[in-house]
Parts: sequence; C-alpha cells; structure tokens
Amino acid sequence: MSDMIKVVLDAMGGDYAPVEPVKGAVEALEANDRIFVYLTGQEAVLKKELEKYTYPKDRLEIVDASEIIETGEPPAKAIQTKKDSSLVKGLKMVREGKADAFVSCGSTGAVLVGGQVIVRKVPGVERAPLAPLIPTEKGFSLLIDCGANVDARSSHLVQFAIMGTIYMKHVIGIKNPTVGLVNIGAEEEKGNALSKETFQLLKQTEGINFIGNVEARDIPAGKADIIVTEAFTGNVILKLYEGLAGTLVKKIKQGLMSTLRSKIGALLIKPALKKTMKSFDASEYGGAPLLGLRGLVIKSHGSSDAREIKNSILQCVKFTEQDLPGMISANLSTKKKEKTEE
Amino acid sequence: MSDMIKVVLDAMGGDYAPVEPVKGAVEALEANDRIFVYLTGQEAVLKKELEKYTYPKDRLEIVDASEIIETGEPPAKAIQTKKDSSLVKGLKMVREGKADAFVSCGSTGAVLVGGQVIVRKVPGVERAPLAPLIPTEKGFSLLIDCGANVDARSSHLVQFAIMGTIYMKHVIGIKNPTVGLVNIGAEEEKGNALSKETFQLLKQTEGINFIGNVEARDIPAGKADIIVTEAFTGNVILKLYEGLAGTLVKKIKQGLMSTLRSKIGALLIKPALKKTMKSFDASEYGGAPLLGLRGLVIKSHGSSDAREIKNSILQCVKFTEQDLPGMISANLSTKKKEKTEE
Repeated sequence: MSDMIKVVLDAMGGDYAPVEPVKGAVEALEANDRIFVYLTGQEAVLKKELEKYTYPKDRLEIVDASEIIETGEPPAKAIQTKKDSSLVKGLKMVREGKADAFVSCGSTGAVLVGGQVIVRKVPGVERAPLAPLIPTEKGFSLLIDCGANVDARSSHLVQFAIMGTIYMKHVIGIKNPTVGLVNIGAEEEKGNALSKETFQLLKQTEGINFIGNVEARDIPAGKADIIVTEAFTGNVILKLYEGLAGTLVKKIKQGLMSTLRSKIGALLIKPALKKTMKSFDASEYGGAPLLGLRGLVIKSHGSSDAREIKNSILQCVKFTEQDLPGMISANLSTKKKEKTEE
Repeated sequence: MSDMIKVVLDAMGGDYAPVEPVKGAVEALEANDRIFVYLTGQEAVLKKELEKYTYPKDRLEIVDASEIIETGEPPAKAIQTKKDSSLVKGLKMVREGKADAFVSCGSTGAVLVGGQVIVRKVPGVERAPLAPLIPTEKGFSLLIDCGANVDARSSHLVQFAIMGTIYMKHVIGIKNPTVGLVNIGAEEEKGNALSKETFQLLKQTEGINFIGNVEARDIPAGKADIIVTEAFTGNVILKLYEGLAGTLVKKIKQGLMSTLRSKIGALLIKPALKKTMKSFDASEYGGAPLLGLRGLVIKSHGSSDAREIKNSILQCVKFTEQDLPGMISANLSTKKKEKTEE
C-alpha cells in the first residue's frame, strides 16, 4: 500500500451526505486503482450505504466518527469541541501522515479553520488561501484567495501568486501560467493602498509570470490564468459568478417562454444550451484546494454530487505525486532568503 | 425660462461624440418641453451637427469650448489645465448656478474629480459616491459606491446608505427602499474590519431600511434596493456584471451554432433572447449620478447612444425638481447633530 494515494473523505459533510460522498468514493476507486479511500463518519450508516455497491474492499476503510459538524456552527468552536467528528478525525489523519489528502463538502469555515489548525501550514506560509477554479471563455482560471481570512497584507498576496503558480503548473499542467492582480483599472498607479503596494511587489517577484492588473470585466474573458486578490474581493467575485449566471439563465428561460415562436425554438436549443451552461458551471472543476498546508485539503461544494466528489478525490493524485507542500515550502523560503540578502 | 430645467450636456464626451450627444439632446427636448439644453463643445462642429435636426431653438444653446478631455488623460491634471474644455466649462455652469445639471459620457475619472473640485460637495458630505443602477431579477438596484475613491471609512458607507435612500425614494420612486451591505456572509459578525464596523453603524442609522448583509450571489436576485459598498468592491461588482453577461451571451451563441437543430432553434429565439438581454443591460437605465454634490452630475456610459443620453437628460428633471442636494444636506446635518448630542 506504500505507493497508494491515501485520501480521507468526510462522508458526513455536504447537502447530500452520506449518499453522494459514498457513491463518489466508490466511483473514484473504480477510476484509479492507485487510490485508497478512508471514509470518516458514523460506521453503521456508512456500512449500510456501502451495501449498495460492489467495490474493491482492500482499498476502502471506514473510520468511525460519531459527531457531525453542521454548516451553521461557528467553525473554531466546532473544531475545538467536536473531536469525534468526521471532519476533525479526517484532518487529523492527514496531520499524522496516515493519509495524504482530505476532501470535504461540509462547512467551508470548519474546513478552513480545521485545515490551518489541525493540518497546519507549511513553514514560510503566512496564510493558507482557498483557490477554486472558475470558468472563463478560454477554459478556467484560478481565483486565489476566496477564503475567510480577510484584511490581507500585500505579502500574503505575493505568496498567493507564488502558490497559485505552482498549483497551475504542476497540478493543472499549464506552462508558464499568467498572474493578474484584481484592480479597478489597468494602469500601475490605480487602486487602493493594498493593490498599489502589491503591484510593486509582484513586479519584483521571481518565478511568476505577472501580467499586471486585471479589471473584473476581464476575468470572465480569461485574461489571466491566476487571479490574485484578497479574500473579501475573491469571495465577492466567486459568489457574483454563481449568482449572475443563475439569474441570467432564469431570465433567458423566462424570455424564451414569451412567444410561441421562441417556445418552439427553446425546445430545439435545449440540449445545446444545457451543454453550454454546464461548461460554465464552476462546480464542474472539482473542489477548491486550501493551499500552503502540510497536506492536501480540498473543499468541494456543499451541493456536490458523486461525480464532483469523485473529481475532487482524483484531483488529489497529482497534487500528492508532485509533493506540492514541499515545492511551496522550498519556493517561499527561497523568496524569503533572497529578500534578506538584498 | 425660470421654471425650466437647465441641463448642460458635454457634447464632446464619449465614444460617439458629437453625433450621439447632439442627437440625444434633440430627442430630450422633444420628450419634455420643460428642458433647456446647453451643449458645450466646439461651436463650429456642433452647429454643423445640429443642422441635421429640427428642434426648438429657444431651448438649446451652444456654449463654445475649444478643448476636449480624452479618456486616457490623468483626471486631476486634465481638469486643472484644460480650462476651456467642454467638461470643465459645463461643470462650471452648474457651480455658478447657470445650469441645474451636467451630463457627460466622457472620462469617468475627469467627471468624478471635476464634480468634486468644481461643483463641490454639499455641506456635511464626506465623499461623493458614483451610484449606477444595475439590473436584477426584480428590476434594478442602486450600487453605491462605484467611483474612484477607494479605502473608504465606515462613516462614508453610512452616508452612502442615506444618500442612496434619498435618491431611490425621491428620484426613482421606491417607497421605503431596502439597504443591504455587501459582505462575505449573511451573519452580523462576518466580514472584514470595515464591514463589521459599518454593519453596527447602519443598524443605528435612522431613516434607512437596513436589512443587513447581502452576499454577492444575492445581488443579481435583487435582495436589496440599495447595495452599499466601498468603491473598490463596487467597481469589481459593476465590471464583473458587464464582463460575465457578455461572456455568457458569447458562450450561448457559440453553443447554439454547434448543431443543425440548435441553429434552427437559434433563429427562432433570436428576437426573444435579444429582448431579454436588453432588459439585463446596465446601460438601459441611463447614467449614474454622482451624489452629494451642490448640483447634479451624471456620468453616462462612454459608449452611450442618443437614447441613453436622452434618458440621462430626462433623469435630471426629477432630481432637480425634488432639490436632492438640499435634501441630502438636511439629512446628513441632522444625523451629525444627533451624533454630537449623544
């Protein structure tokens, strides 16, 4: 089992737990025979759920956890008090080296806090950013940071650019990915205090392909592979993406029902429209990694189905094979060293 | 001419100047016979352009201005040096009381700086916010602030909420408009330092209908009539709205060309789709007012056509009739007084 990729799945997290997580785990095992899955959660419940499937029993193990962290709970307190939850137990397995990666569709706050407190940051990392892939005209971009750590400093944003570059290069496979800084104008002198300061630092940062400021209107066009921003703005961008796409589709559907002619047309375009909207659905790209930790922690959407959970588990393979935590640590320490030497 | 609404139109500003501004002015004069328009710009050019139309000559006057402020110019410098520009001359007429309102499709930066420097703020106003209407599922919301004044303080945001409420009530005609604060979570304790502080202040502010935090995903759904945020985030929201809508439509069009079936469907739905997208186009709602000034300053899109410019001019009527500057001043001084008395 030594060269297996060991992934812990929080089988009690998410809107459709445990049904979809269990199904997703089984599908991931089918898709890649180098994966071993630990399911954390209430043993009796999970055993019963697993009875539905045929799966390689030597590559799946249930780790009993009696408690469940709910979405509404204050994250820090939940992590502290619910020691026997599927989330805390799973994260501890990564910390102790028993597993390489942890995947959850549960409370974003609890995953973020738990990741930092239990798995802990790699030496040199100031903050661990949450970095989902968002769809664009050209494919997708990495939006870093969308987490809960607001009021960031420019040094954090520089680290996000470096970590994002490593992720896009080595996990997603984009050569020399471009880095853009979210700002309210394209010119160097535009923006607030944070963006002005960050711009100057990014210009001097080695090992990244910084292309300057990116206005929000250029994000959906795919102007940069890595979109660097602090978490407040990142969160606004991510959620407006979801909200606006949903509203537009609703409006278009209403519009298509307005005349007989358009109703007939609507029937004809339905399959093509569905396919298009799917290609523009952020959740198609699996979960968002919490970068800069000693192990891999992936947050999948609360509403994830088995397919998305399977994708999140498969995502862990490349991440682990490439030793991203090691790479991040090496890159950030080098940068620090360079700075000190100047 | 005493009860006329006198509007200065920057006839040289915008992508289609002077053709569309001149046409828009003529259309506005036709639409409302209480409007008087001053066109600022190069007299010879404007005279020639006006020859195309029949219009009430006693309600239109050209004010010669030899210079033009271009979009790329640094705003503060342009305002200072180009004294004989259509923009500076127009704003001066508002300052001197010769006109009630100023409309421009020119450089946003120059309009923002010029508005504050030349027309000046109403007593009590700390910052003049730019507040466009953005389309939502229910109709539209006022997004305040989208200007260039970044790094705002909580007291600024409270004033935005008050000014936005006055505008939505008295100009747009919404009774008891709801106010939402852009944040990364619905709960009171969520967000960055600025949003937490602002939340507490808004809760105590009289005369506004504060409904709490609004997450970005709820903005397109129309959760609040007035969306309060500082300018950096406001700018990101406004530009992502534009960018995402454009990208989605492009994607949908591409998708519709993918099969013969969908191509036929596309032909049938074209008129309905066009109508829908138009109802979701931010530029449909005329220009964005720069609130809190001693006169009305309206920034219309750079790409405005005659219809949009006409709408921006017509918008001035209600604003002026209601004496918004006076109302804003009265409301903000009252709030200040209350605070001092505490």
